[in-house]
Amino acid sequence: MPELHTVYIGKKPTMNYVLAVVTQFNSGSGEVTVKARGRSISRAVDVAEIVRNRFVPGSKVRDVRISTEKLTGEDGRTASVSSIEILLTKQDGPQRGVRGPRPTGPGDGQARP
Amino acid sequence: MPELHTVYIGKKPTMNYVLAVVTQFNSGSGEVTVKARGRSISRAVDVAEIVRNRFVPGSKVRDVRISTEKLTGEDGRTASVSSIEILLTKQDGPQRGVRGPRPTGPGDGQARP
Repeated sequence: MPELHTVYIGKKPTMNYVLAVVTQFNSGSGEVTVKARGRSISRAVDVAEIVRNRFVPGSKVRDVRISTEKLTGEDGRTASVSSIEILLTKQDGPQRGVRGPRPTGPGDGQARP
Repeated sequence: MPELHTVYIGKKPTMNYVLAVVTQFNSGSGEVTVKARGRSISRAVDVAEIVRNRFVPGSKVRDVRISTEKLTGEDGRTASVSSIEILLTKQDGPQRGVRGPRPTGPGDGQARP
């Protein structure tokens, strides 16, 4: 799988990564992969869900893979860390730009960081 | 999908949930779903990976779904929260109990009747 169009999730605010994914889609990518490890996995799911629900109409989650990566430290010890890859795809359709459909209902929750 | 054989991940230590999943498999379940919301999503992935790699030989991740749930608080405001469902399945085979797979080698005992 090409490593192009991959957004790696770290510890910055969630919306930074949402913007990175939206920028990829708006520059013509049909697929963007969101990757994270360890505690950032939750944030990766938030990013994918926010992109899909609010910013890129016609996008969907095509695949989610989880795995374990072995990291070796300087002292030679290995540690296992969980990782996730979320493949987002965008169906062809009218380009609507960054603004997504307005959330319906009262008080769209901002619970996600 | 039946809600049987579902383990909900919260804020307890990861190994508590690993034990819950292993217990389900050892009591005869062929499928166990691991569910989590919000910050517990990372822990859910850890649980699935630890079960698969260390405790239940022949188990695998058959599906991972992510979604957004709307929660309504007492004040009527709604908040969106990401969620994950990881479907683990175990292939039929000799029941080996909680101990992990033997070291591989010639004649690795994965033979099925």
